[in-house]
Amino acid sequence: MSAVAEIVNQTWETIANKYREQTSAKIPSEWLLPSSITSTVSETSVQNVLSIPRTCGILSEQEIEITEKYDAVTLAEMLKEGKVKSVDVTRAFCKRAAVAQQLTYCLTETMFDEALERAKYCDDYLAKEGKPLGPLHGLPISLKDSFNVKGFKSTIGYVSFIANEPSTTNSALVSILLNLGAVLYVKTNIPQTLMTADSQNNIFLRTLNPNSLHLTAGGSSGGEGALSALKGSILGVGTDIAGSIRIPAYCNGVTGFKPSTRRIPYGGQTGPGRVGSWAILASAGPICRSVSDAHFFCKSVLSADCWVFDETVVSAPWRYLQPMGKRLKLGYLKEHARWPLSPTLSRVFDEATKALSAAGHVMVDIEPLLPKDIMVDAMVTAFKMFSLDPKQTPFSIIKKSGEPIIPSIGTIVVEEMKGFVPDLDAVWDLNVEAKAMKEKVRDLWVKEGLDAILMPVYQGTAPKHDNYGAPPYTVFANLLDYPSVSIPFLKSNKKLDEPYIRKGVTYAPAYESEACEGVPGGLQILGRNMRDEECLDVAGVVESILRMAERKIV
Amino acid sequence: MSAVAEIVNQTWETIANKYREQTSAKIPSEWLLPSSITSTVSETSVQNVLSIPRTCGILSEQEIEITEKYDAVTLAEMLKEGKVKSVDVTRAFCKRAAVAQQLTYCLTETMFDEALERAKYCDDYLAKEGKPLGPLHGLPISLKDSFNVKGFKSTIGYVSFIANEPSTTNSALVSILLNLGAVLYVKTNIPQTLMTADSQNNIFLRTLNPNSLHLTAGGSSGGEGALSALKGSILGVGTDIAGSIRIPAYCNGVTGFKPSTRRIPYGGQTGPGRVGSWAILASAGPICRSVSDAHFFCKSVLSADCWVFDETVVSAPWRYLQPMGKRLKLGYLKEHARWPLSPTLSRVFDEATKALSAAGHVMVDIEPLLPKDIMVDAMVTAFKMFSLDPKQTPFSIIKKSGEPIIPSIGTIVVEEMKGFVPDLDAVWDLNVEAKAMKEKVRDLWVKEGLDAILMPVYQGTAPKHDNYGAPPYTVFANLLDYPSVSIPFLKSNKKLDEPYIRKGVTYAPAYESEACEGVPGGLQILGRNMRDEECLDVAGVVESILRMAERKIV
Repeated sequence: MSAVAEIVNQTWETIANKYREQTSAKIPSEWLLPSSITSTVSETSVQNVLSIPRTCGILSEQEIEITEKYDAVTLAEMLKEGKVKSVDVTRAFCKRAAVAQQLTYCLTETMFDEALERAKYCDDYLAKEGKPLGPLHGLPISLKDSFNVKGFKSTIGYVSFIANEPSTTNSALVSILLNLGAVLYVKTNIPQTLMTADSQNNIFLRTLNPNSLHLTAGGSSGGEGALSALKGSILGVGTDIAGSIRIPAYCNGVTGFKPSTRRIPYGGQTGPGRVGSWAILASAGPICRSVSDAHFFCKSVLSADCWVFDETVVSAPWRYLQPMGKRLKLGYLKEHARWPLSPTLSRVFDEATKALSAAGHVMVDIEPLLPKDIMVDAMVTAFKMFSLDPKQTPFSIIKKSGEPIIPSIGTIVVEEMKGFVPDLDAVWDLNVEAKAMKEKVRDLWVKEGLDAILMPVYQGTAPKHDNYGAPPYTVFANLLDYPSVSIPFLKSNKKLDEPYIRKGVTYAPAYESEACEGVPGGLQILGRNMRDEECLDVAGVVESILRMAERKIV
Repeated sequence: MSAVAEIVNQTWETIANKYREQTSAKIPSEWLLPSSITSTVSETSVQNVLSIPRTCGILSEQEIEITEKYDAVTLAEMLKEGKVKSVDVTRAFCKRAAVAQQLTYCLTETMFDEALERAKYCDDYLAKEGKPLGPLHGLPISLKDSFNVKGFKSTIGYVSFIANEPSTTNSALVSILLNLGAVLYVKTNIPQTLMTADSQNNIFLRTLNPNSLHLTAGGSSGGEGALSALKGSILGVGTDIAGSIRIPAYCNGVTGFKPSTRRIPYGGQTGPGRVGSWAILASAGPICRSVSDAHFFCKSVLSADCWVFDETVVSAPWRYLQPMGKRLKLGYLKEHARWPLSPTLSRVFDEATKALSAAGHVMVDIEPLLPKDIMVDAMVTAFKMFSLDPKQTPFSIIKKSGEPIIPSIGTIVVEEMKGFVPDLDAVWDLNVEAKAMKEKVRDLWVKEGLDAILMPVYQGTAPKHDNYGAPPYTVFANLLDYPSVSIPFLKSNKKLDEPYIRKGVTYAPAYESEACEGVPGGLQILGRNMRDEECLDVAGVVESILRMAERKIV
């Protein structure tokens, strides 16, 4: 009896549980946390687990240092110079990822043996040839589950996809990363359908937020976000069509970069829906620890001739800019009244603009300069564009296995979608609407001479599971096709946030000061389409100012 | 009574004739050809009128020299150095364009007075400031009628559009050209709907081919093609979604470049159909006298920050390449059996590949390496993508005035389109089909290590009016979104072509050796998407080899 036939005769639960157990069993027993820890892990626990990888005793001193002390740029340099072995670096990240998985369910496939073998190959190559394989020589990189890696499945949270054979091809980006010297060691968890911000599915369960397990880790690249926050990855790759890189980076307190579409190769992934989508494209991009690591990722990937691997990319080489010494002009779009910022976020945003002003940069409130409801309109247009498949492929894929739809999907309600009929005329009209908004923002950008736009990533800090809802603040950049960097800044602080509580304002999700205490805040920096280089440069300036400011503010 | 109301009460013929006469009346009487010449102009005449501008006595010696002796690069240099005045250059091209119009109906709007005023401004600026306005300082540039110029109408061949007010805005490219110092002096003729290769409409009539008036000037940028061949323009701008730059360049014996889409700003034109199209985009690009002029145009335009004017462009700066010294590897796709090359074209193609081989370049026949019918499939997919407007907007625009549909539109028959139902599912499926073809060609390109692909522009030389039909050889590059340069090479020659007549082959359009004697041949060179720079560099090498070869072959 074939594997597929075997699966057909079982319930979706048996199939999913068996596959999850089979995957879990690949974690070596010496990397398993004691039940005294794992028994406290639950989606209702308010526990912060960020320090457990360091204290659990599974990682050696050296492994703690490797995984905590450096950024990707430095670690890559050390690897290329032979100051540290890829085998040691890889083992350290494999162990830490295994620990992270037991704390937050952030992983799908693990590739530990293959990664260590690859790491040894990198070390041997350097010893023998006296030169590195490429800019990412020996560096472990984690991947969202949708990226195909030869020999591993991409179930992307669909129980019916367990029946698929392991991938026989690499995604374009995977081939490029390998050519550049990277070591691939884990794939990370995502939501069923990839179209919601809670990374839960019926195979690999729900990714928890390591800052407080009862909060969402965000999505759809939620596994990457949680793994990165736990320092189980130094450089990970996610994808973003409505915020799926920036939301989990933000919720977990790390850095995420959504490039302009078609800039970083997206091709050859396992997609959650119908093949042939076009109206809004997704970007692949890094989830990492700093803006400079995001920059390092992009320039490394674009050092390859990406079109050779993915004919959908725009073959525009990475541009090297002169260091910025100028006073920046930053537009900011703090809030739309429909999604009022929580007290924490109001404070975060105010402190950010204050610090940037104090550093000499010019801050322009662009909210009154844009059409009043452009953020609402952008979200509605984007979600209509996401709904153009008459076959509703994701739901028919779900139905195949009989598995239930995850609750988070029902939380994304865009009222204006009611009565929307996806047909050919709608496509024309949506294009016209999207173009009008792009023109409006471009006109403002040009008129004001902006270098970037600052926005919240979300109206609050990471909410409780299944409370995120629609993502108006992030999808704005997707509709415009602007690059955007999400940067962590400050944390919820009951005392400091209190003065920001506004009477008569209904916060949704609810603002619960106890529940979010110590949870990361942050913001995003939007650049012009195809000016990913400038966007990251501005973000680097902003990041350094915010990090200095953070030291002064509790 | 308003102008619009006045128009409503008249027949389309009265409206069209009046508008045409009104436009014609702007040609100064001293620039009018004698009736001994104009009376011989007709769409059934076999006359070659290329030498008439030189011999008619309207242009001075200096004006003949200005319009004939230089390429755009040289003339722009002379203008910037003040060696020649823009007023003199502009007057020369205005006169020559006026003469061209009387021979071929290649113009729509003339802007002679405004151009001479602008030229004087350029001359004064240079004299006063000691520096040019920009790289295109004082250089006259002609524009396809679809480009909007403030104060002038863009009727684009629709009688109902005569009722529109003159444009109050410039197209993005128009603003950029003006910022770069250009002088705009004429807009050029196009077909009703812009979707066929015979540039005929009910306002400005039919553009004739100056090589032989009874042949098509091609389209949809047919006016540009005829004007350029008559040297009434040194640099013109057309647009191309299925061949509309390359076809008229080819038919008339000049050079045309269709860049990758979104490279040269296309925005802010008056379009022939519904706003919001997306499936296949059109490119704007130059029709000119040489590959180096096409290169000059692109690098000049991209020296501007084009996104500021048109948010739909890909903000990728023009790349400056090292001079090519290498042996090229050129794939060639000579023919699909469904559209057999005429004897002239067979010879043209063979002579080209022979000359390129003899120059040391490696020629690879890629026809057997590609899916057998990829050219057919590409054309069918492209034409389905052109047919996605359920409202069929162009035809409702035509109906408004009661004007008849031009016969050429009925000649574009793609049999496989029968039964095609444009709906939302079709869009998904077409995307999948197009992507598969892009992958196939990319795979071949990478595997063979190609520098470019050589193809015919068309299966024959310019056919008689209303015989062009569908454009399989050009639309291939549009479907792939590859840049492509059309280069003239050799001419029909009854004696030399005779050995290439194949028995049992049905040439369509019919091969009539007398009718096409002396009519230009040519071919196109396709580059990779977004590698417009490399495409033009290869085309420059090919052009120089072909020009040398041409001297040896009759």
